[in-house]
Amino acid sequence: MDYAKEALRLHREWKGKLEVTPKVPVATREDLSLAYTPGVAAPCLEIQKDVDQSYELTGRWNTVAVVTDGTAVLGLGDIGPEAGMPVMEGKCVLFKAFGGVDAIPLCVRSKDVDEIVNTVALLAGSFGGVNLEDISAPRCFEIERKLKERCDIPIFHDDQHGTAVITLAGLTNALKVVGKRKETVRVVMNGAGAAAIAICKLLLAAGVKDVTLCDRSGAIYAGREKGMNAVKEEMARVTNLQKRAGSLAEVLAGADVFIGVSAPGAVTAEMVQTMNRDAILFACANPTPEIFPDEAKAGGAKVVATGRSDFPNQINNVLAFPGIFRGAFDVRASDINEAMKVAAAEALAGLISDEERNADYIIPAAFDPRVGRTVAAAVAQAARDSGVARI
Amino acid sequence: MDYAKEALRLHREWKGKLEVTPKVPVATREDLSLAYTPGVAAPCLEIQKDVDQSYELTGRWNTVAVVTDGTAVLGLGDIGPEAGMPVMEGKCVLFKAFGGVDAIPLCVRSKDVDEIVNTVALLAGSFGGVNLEDISAPRCFEIERKLKERCDIPIFHDDQHGTAVITLAGLTNALKVVGKRKETVRVVMNGAGAAAIAICKLLLAAGVKDVTLCDRSGAIYAGREKGMNAVKEEMARVTNLQKRAGSLAEVLAGADVFIGVSAPGAVTAEMVQTMNRDAILFACANPTPEIFPDEAKAGGAKVVATGRSDFPNQINNVLAFPGIFRGAFDVRASDINEAMKVAAAEALAGLISDEERNADYIIPAAFDPRVGRTVAAAVAQAARDSGVARI
Repeated sequence: MDYAKEALRLHREWKGKLEVTPKVPVATREDLSLAYTPGVAAPCLEIQKDVDQSYELTGRWNTVAVVTDGTAVLGLGDIGPEAGMPVMEGKCVLFKAFGGVDAIPLCVRSKDVDEIVNTVALLAGSFGGVNLEDISAPRCFEIERKLKERCDIPIFHDDQHGTAVITLAGLTNALKVVGKRKETVRVVMNGAGAAAIAICKLLLAAGVKDVTLCDRSGAIYAGREKGMNAVKEEMARVTNLQKRAGSLAEVLAGADVFIGVSAPGAVTAEMVQTMNRDAILFACANPTPEIFPDEAKAGGAKVVATGRSDFPNQINNVLAFPGIFRGAFDVRASDINEAMKVAAAEALAGLISDEERNADYIIPAAFDPRVGRTVAAAVAQAARDSGVARI
Repeated sequence: MDYAKEALRLHREWKGKLEVTPKVPVATREDLSLAYTPGVAAPCLEIQKDVDQSYELTGRWNTVAVVTDGTAVLGLGDIGPEAGMPVMEGKCVLFKAFGGVDAIPLCVRSKDVDEIVNTVALLAGSFGGVNLEDISAPRCFEIERKLKERCDIPIFHDDQHGTAVITLAGLTNALKVVGKRKETVRVVMNGAGAAAIAICKLLLAAGVKDVTLCDRSGAIYAGREKGMNAVKEEMARVTNLQKRAGSLAEVLAGADVFIGVSAPGAVTAEMVQTMNRDAILFACANPTPEIFPDEAKAGGAKVVATGRSDFPNQINNVLAFPGIFRGAFDVRASDINEAMKVAAAEALAGLISDEERNADYIIPAAFDPRVGRTVAAAVAQAARDSGVARI
């Protein structure tokens, strides 16, 4: 099927993928008096007395804003706020279908960090949480950080953290398949964008010790002079402690794991051949991966994951964000922290039993009906354990 | 029934009166590929090429934001943004139920005019229109004016314009009942808040010639020194051209019509006795009107309207805003202008035939099934005639 053509036809037919529907009856005068004036004054006054009652008396407890500025939409780049909305609507559909979360798509007509932060922060009383989406790096880091400082609700940049959760889940199972331990494997990552940084941080939080990040200038290490920025400097302090220098091809030699969030064709079968035995490759460039699974396997790889649904082991964010917000909302979490993300990854990985697990099945299927509630339960428990649950 | 108690109980049970529901299937991998990646890239690129395609390929064409800062909620005053949300949700329910419009409730944590304007303006690409709600005067005038300047979508402050439309509709029929003409009647209004100003302006736009506005200091006239402000100065230039001075009681003597958007008990039966024969009174203070219908009739009034559902002739905004936005959205209007509001009022008034019309039936019932579509059709036509329709 020509997905582009058919999707365009359907979007013209749909004219929007969401509907805002009343949950309450307004068929009679009495219905109106209860859902609207004069009755509605009573819940208003309760919230005036105690703002937390907004979680009990309005839909806030279950509502997430899905916010973009349209600067990094899919792989299309800066296409503008309105042009990002079909993706935001799609995300909102998935939030409801896979997490039971009511999601509202919003696009902001600004690329200015502080303007975006201010807009979202001023609306925070309307929502239980905010999902940032398709905002370009490094602005996305600053927007997320500033919003977390200003808001009392979870702020979650899915392109970073959703991807990181699935990657950690997949890596956990891939390491079991090849009989290696995360504490001792050597991981090389390519790409130093938003998703790569988030994956790297989450791997470290989960106990991986040896990660080397590469960008276009090769391995990033403390003291490198070319092409550094604040985020890379920060990462150089906690990664590549041996200060390996050189190209991706050079540092990949002897590595156990490759994780690419970079560009099509960045890795060749020859490069895979130089990796350690039973190499694991997560080639997440989309739609064309850093290396196709058959080439990677020809180079000796044991486990390969991609972002594509037509190969095994798809890194698909829909496995994470609906359940993560479901769990955070269920305990009215004030934040979605590293512990909650690690718990989500472990719960996802744990859905595949020892008997089922193999090189082509390290990540649950998108439509596995257990995913949403299992992730939610683990995230809610981690929120309680880490002290951010408010109920 | 104790509406307050029962409404509070129901709001606790409902936990929100709205739901965001998918209109598209996501039950299979192929569904996902069309509603989300990779297919969704195609509509995104179409909108990048032509932003107007956002009205064809997303839900924008049918989506209104219902925005408050919580400063003038119902008659409760400044109760805070979150505390206003039960009303906003109720409004959104009515938008869908009576106009088929998808409405999103938003509260802004700011009382600063420019901050509110900036927040809403930056989000305007997400919506087809904005309904401002329960924002205190005089800030609401400035917020509305600045948003109209900055946005290419309709901005409508329902507390002002919705109320004005229903009042004009009711007055049109009331004048027919008593056999008077709007060009020659003398109208006295009490209250100089947002709704009063909007009613006054719309009456003038519709052809009423002689209106006198009163505030706590009595009749407003050009040159009055006490208690004036920019809005009152503006109104003094187009109302009370005879420069009547004096208290409400004094200027009401001899008037044909009283319209109150003021305070309980502002008018007595004795004051009504001094009015012209067949007096018309719209006593809209809510829930306790300026004068109750039985007292007004005891003073000689012929037609009485209030904001209450337990008396005849209810001034109820639900008759206007769903159809007005339905009509504006149907022709992708860039504005909701005076001509469209007058058309809405005339359409509402016209729903009551000469045979049906009487002193207790000047305004259609809230649940009259013809209301929404009749108002919408008239508004859409007026948008076309006045050049603001874009399709």
